[in-house]
Amino acid sequence: MSLNSIFQYFVPKDKKVFFPLFEQAATNVKQMAEVLVEAVNSKNDADRQEAFKQIDKLENKGDDLTHQIYLELGKNFITPFDREDIHALATAIDDVADYIQGSANRMLLYNIEEYTEPICKLSELILQGSIDLEKAVRELKDLKNVRNIADSCIRINSVENQADYVFDRAVADLFLYEKDAMRLIKYKEILAALETATDMCEDAANVMESILVKNA
Amino acid sequence: MSLNSIFQYFVPKDKKVFFPLFEQAATNVKQMAEVLVEAVNSKNDADRQEAFKQIDKLENKGDDLTHQIYLELGKNFITPFDREDIHALATAIDDVADYIQGSANRMLLYNIEEYTEPICKLSELILQGSIDLEKAVRELKDLKNVRNIADSCIRINSVENQADYVFDRAVADLFLYEKDAMRLIKYKEILAALETATDMCEDAANVMESILVKNA
Amino acid sequence: MSLNSIFQYFVPKDKKVFFPLFEQAATNVKQMAEVLVEAVNSKNDADRQEAFKQIDKLENKGDDLTHQIYLELGKNFITPFDREDIHALATAIDDVADYIQGSANRMLLYNIEEYTEPICKLSELILQGSIDLEKAVRELKDLKNVRNIADSCIRINSVENQADYVFDRAVADLFLYEKDAMRLIKYKEILAALETATDMCEDAANVMESILVKNA
Repeated sequence: MSLNSIFQYFVPKDKKVFFPLFEQAATNVKQMAEVLVEAVNSKNDADRQEAFKQIDKLENKGDDLTHQIYLELGKNFITPFDREDIHALATAIDDVADYIQGSANRMLLYNIEEYTEPICKLSELILQGSIDLEKAVRELKDLKNVRNIADSCIRINSVENQADYVFDRAVADLFLYEKDAMRLIKYKEILAALETATDMCEDAANVMESILVKNA
Repeated sequence: MSLNSIFQYFVPKDKKVFFPLFEQAATNVKQMAEVLVEAVNSKNDADRQEAFKQIDKLENKGDDLTHQIYLELGKNFITPFDREDIHALATAIDDVADYIQGSANRMLLYNIEEYTEPICKLSELILQGSIDLEKAVRELKDLKNVRNIADSCIRINSVENQADYVFDRAVADLFLYEKDAMRLIKYKEILAALETATDMCEDAANVMESILVKNA
Repeated sequence: MSLNSIFQYFVPKDKKVFFPLFEQAATNVKQMAEVLVEAVNSKNDADRQEAFKQIDKLENKGDDLTHQIYLELGKNFITPFDREDIHALATAIDDVADYIQGSANRMLLYNIEEYTEPICKLSELILQGSIDLEKAVRELKDLKNVRNIADSCIRINSVENQADYVFDRAVADLFLYEKDAMRLIKYKEILAALETATDMCEDAANVMESILVKNA
């Protein structure tokens, strides 16, 4: 038994501070993913610009939440999990938000004309991953349903595998069918940013799995 | 002395569970690297396709081993090292396997015609790194030969440095001699995936070094 | 209170060994960044070659310092912070050095003709980040001015954000104005290496923040 676990029997846990912040951060990421899916499926350029702006706003909100978690970590004597894990989870959720915004930003900056099928598919996978991320985070507060958290983490891993596959296939197709090297590079960069957002979901899942391992 | 080390004098260690799994995972990576070297040196396209299929199979086997380690972590009260280190080492070994398979997958998907010298050289370096990875993992079980583990880790670091150099040189040559931008991108991507496999070996070495530091 | 903190009241700390090494490593990174800024702003090719050579030398010196920290970790019974954090901080500082040298190396290998504004701007940001990195590292030894360390870490985060923005904007401009795909790829790679150096500064800042969290 880790000393951490022994301590759990003696100390009260300050759950009221951290869990609401984590839940808000995870919900924020899910909303970003929803807006991303809207943006890439939008038939209307003005709507899409609007969606990209909303993603920027949500990302700022996410930054504030992450910062609040760090501040609470500094103030709180007792934390529900290891301080390192709280730090790592907050960072991982923030990374998902960063890559969603980074992908949206590239689409905007590179001024792409066509929102291709792999772009839409990867955005959809990010949303799936974010839904499970939020689910898992909500279960962390009581660890009553460890099975549910583990299942969400497994699904997030599967989403990341699918995203890898979509990315690889899409890049192979670019090499086969895209004749303009510039366009090929642009699309490859955007697809890579989207795919990395699912990697960051997986990182968050890995932190949660490691929290389960220590607190099981 | 860390509390972890104090505890080591009181608790039996469940070495029988974890070490065989780690050894199998490391041997599996070494086999993947051997098949990769065969594939890139193959003069026969059918043989190469066969090798790529075998890499996929071994990668699946590696995934199962990683999953088993995670499951055991959940079940086992006592672990030979910190649970976090066991988790991190299993993940790092799995990452090496992922990048070997990812490299092979790109070669297949991008349908490259020529297996160039830097591709063969980087594959060879991955194999060297994997051989030392396996050696070091096999020594973990008793920590009698800490020097051997440290030496393997140093060699893995040196392999990663050499791979960096081969990669940089190869990309510079592509810029000098390759006139087709598409081909340049393809080869650069494949070389990058191969080089990253050696980075992941180094990550595994870093985890082992940190295990040594804590358990010395 | 973490057990780590309890122990702090009982054990003397071997600060005399680690802090000078960390300070030398951070100063070394700052010097590399200074030489990088000189190199990219140099009007004279011979001076620039000289600067690149000096970066290589400093990187070697940094490697030695990192290695010494690892060795001390193995020898020292008592460490001022968690051994893992010492290992992680040494690695992060080494990573900044690696990416500065990697950027310089690419500029040299790809034989670029023009040191563009974004290259100079990113080099300047690396220098700013390195200055704060050194400042923060120097404050670690007594943790009297926790606020100063936290402020440096916040500034390093801001530098990383600015570098992201410069990188994104520069790559968008390449897509707009650069007609030669090869040149576009070259510059994109160099900008990416420079931007990653600021990511590594942020990693180092994250480790220091996590040290603060544990030792506050």
